[in-house]
Amino acid sequence: MEQELQTRILHAVDDLFEREISFLTELTSHPSTRGNEQSAQTFMTSELKSRGLEVDQWQIDVDEISHLPGFSPVLAPYEDAQNVVGTHRSRTRKGRSLILNGHIDVVPAGPLDMWDRPPFEPHVDSGWLYGRGGGDMKAGLASNLFALEALKHLGLAPAADLFYQSVVEEECTGNGALACLARGYRADAALIPEPFAEQLVTSQIGVIWFQVHLKGLPTHVAYAGAGANAIEAAIPLIAALHEMEHRWNAAEHRHPDFAHHDHALNLNVGKIQGGDWTSSVPAWSTLDLRMAIFPGQDIEAAKAEIEATILEAARQNDFLKNSLPEVVYHGFLAEGYALSEDKSSTAKAAIGALETAHLATTGEALETSAITATTDARFFGLYADTPALVYGPRAEAIHGFNERVELESIRRITQSTALFIADWCGVEDI
Amino acid sequence: MEQELQTRILHAVDDLFEREISFLTELTSHPSTRGNEQSAQTFMTSELKSRGLEVDQWQIDVDEISHLPGFSPVLAPYEDAQNVVGTHRSRTRKGRSLILNGHIDVVPAGPLDMWDRPPFEPHVDSGWLYGRGGGDMKAGLASNLFALEALKHLGLAPAADLFYQSVVEEECTGNGALACLARGYRADAALIPEPFAEQLVTSQIGVIWFQVHLKGLPTHVAYAGAGANAIEAAIPLIAALHEMEHRWNAAEHRHPDFAHHDHALNLNVGKIQGGDWTSSVPAWSTLDLRMAIFPGQDIEAAKAEIEATILEAARQNDFLKNSLPEVVYHGFLAEGYALSEDKSSTAKAAIGALETAHLATTGEALETSAITATTDARFFGLYADTPALVYGPRAEAIHGFNERVELESIRRITQSTALFIADWCGVEDI
Repeated sequence: MEQELQTRILHAVDDLFEREISFLTELTSHPSTRGNEQSAQTFMTSELKSRGLEVDQWQIDVDEISHLPGFSPVLAPYEDAQNVVGTHRSRTRKGRSLILNGHIDVVPAGPLDMWDRPPFEPHVDSGWLYGRGGGDMKAGLASNLFALEALKHLGLAPAADLFYQSVVEEECTGNGALACLARGYRADAALIPEPFAEQLVTSQIGVIWFQVHLKGLPTHVAYAGAGANAIEAAIPLIAALHEMEHRWNAAEHRHPDFAHHDHALNLNVGKIQGGDWTSSVPAWSTLDLRMAIFPGQDIEAAKAEIEATILEAARQNDFLKNSLPEVVYHGFLAEGYALSEDKSSTAKAAIGALETAHLATTGEALETSAITATTDARFFGLYADTPALVYGPRAEAIHGFNERVELESIRRITQSTALFIADWCGVEDI
Repeated sequence: MEQELQTRILHAVDDLFEREISFLTELTSHPSTRGNEQSAQTFMTSELKSRGLEVDQWQIDVDEISHLPGFSPVLAPYEDAQNVVGTHRSRTRKGRSLILNGHIDVVPAGPLDMWDRPPFEPHVDSGWLYGRGGGDMKAGLASNLFALEALKHLGLAPAADLFYQSVVEEECTGNGALACLARGYRADAALIPEPFAEQLVTSQIGVIWFQVHLKGLPTHVAYAGAGANAIEAAIPLIAALHEMEHRWNAAEHRHPDFAHHDHALNLNVGKIQGGDWTSSVPAWSTLDLRMAIFPGQDIEAAKAEIEATILEAARQNDFLKNSLPEVVYHGFLAEGYALSEDKSSTAKAAIGALETAHLATTGEALETSAITATTDARFFGLYADTPALVYGPRAEAIHGFNERVELESIRRITQSTALFIADWCGVEDI
């Protein structure tokens, strides 16, 4: 790319940056938790249409994707689960096509009194934007959009087909990204600006969500010895699962990208509920757990080991051995994905283009990282033979309180993205 | 009492027994869990009125009882918490007055799939009536009512004022019984047919309900090591409370009535809830616990030890020490009560009258027991100087699934109760 074009693109992002942050602020004010994505997606549709993109908004139909590799089971209804894709059709199609992907769903805010300010009233303070989902990953939806906008500002458009995706369900299944694949959206590469501090993610773990249902025979607490407490019965199961977590993290089991990470695979007891009455020995409890797996680790084998671990611990428990726990899969059954293992020329070219863009923007070499979370990148990489570059801004406390994302980091990511698009797709006059 | 009257009373109960079980069946079909007592109380009012009692139905006003000894704090609203008292005014007033007390509230049914038949569709099978609350304690409300009805069947009425009470809130605070005291209902003795297998309860433990609120700094589970899991943080607290429970049950601390009971005081983790998202380290959890105390054990001292135990355990925990748990009292702050310690002549006479009635009905001596639960008896015994006789039918699985109460046991309790009324109050012609 000519130096002059490069400089004009960087400046165009600067020129538009205030509008980008306004857009991000408004988007973050939509509380798009699971089941409540509708208003945010309607906003996205309107923003994409106003920029001249051809918009496809549709409701996910589980029947159309449940047979596909990468599908995760969900128990919740999908009436409000709508994907939005804005398509730019190139006149010249001389470059390589691209998917710019981001997810609209955000995780719950948790107790409001632990936020310094309301989670869905985003605000900027000392160079950071605060609010639930601001970092994970509405800043990425903003950088994708304003990278395109910067080119347009210069009278340019990508010289290849480009698909701007705003998907649901990244935080629990990935079925939003899967539904885009099923609908036929394909490209030569994908970019996903998840908030991993301006590093290129070259490896990500997989995630399994499972529920454990415990039931027992309750009684009046006056006769507690005769009853079985379905809440306390969970404690030895949690301990057994932590032992399994420890085994899976052992050095000899690690994927090479995580060789120096002592504890890449985390077990999380994310939710619990049990009992109906303080003076009744609880008859039931339900735990929602999350366990990670390495890239290449087989999901079915992992599920079998999880179940065996739970049942073995249950059989050693006087109460549980007569009332074995039930394991239900509900949410992520996500494989790990390592871009580092994609030796194709396309992957090499895509990474090279991003390195160039990053260097031009920041003056520094692009660093890479292996992350202990999952992203929608796996769908492109594993099931569509498309290298997926996860590269986004710096954020803090994602899934926590006072989540925030750094504004200057958003600016740099937007600039790199715009340069990457111009390089990968090439540019044509509008 | 003349042998002939005694025999006529026993037969009158037999004659009415089918109607008594019909009444009990209908009463048990009202799902009068906390907050839903209204329809059952309306039914009670109608049944009492139709029998010529003067009915007082009123809504509990927390402000009128919160300063009284024995009050328990509640966080729930009291709009539906209505007491019902039916009064019989004697013409002659030659005998001793009596309160017949029972509670209308029942504990939650728990998971419906663990019941063989729906909990609020009571049915009789092989001599037992099944249904939530049938035993605890709608059978007692039935035996109280049909003991009176048997006398009426013979053209007789108690020769003293008698107050038939159907109260709310026995299962969580006792504020229903307390409100009856505050409204001025007093008598020389009280009878409460709680389902303790035809034995006279001479001692009952006290009960403290408390909530433990844990909060922490959550994060994405990818960085679980940096977050603090507010669900797992509960585990060492539960262990510490069990150690306290063990100490309190030590032989040297036992009330004499429980000297041979190894574990009269039970800690119950009755409810738990925590976390919002499977892949977020949970920021909060709330536990509802119940701990028992011996008669004579001071409530304030017990609360102080519970709090100290929780805080000491919390201070040993890396996460909790920076975010100490909050203890909230919500429900029972109930002292223990020992009828066995009431050396008054009234208590002696009341117990004697019940022994005579029980022997006449069953041919066996009245056995006594010290129970590991609380009842409303404490209000009469501790705060109104009124001996309270807890004596009711045989039931099983109270607070459990397929709760049931034995029909022949209800018949015997009704007969004993009718004989007891005729002896204690005397009889007069209607």
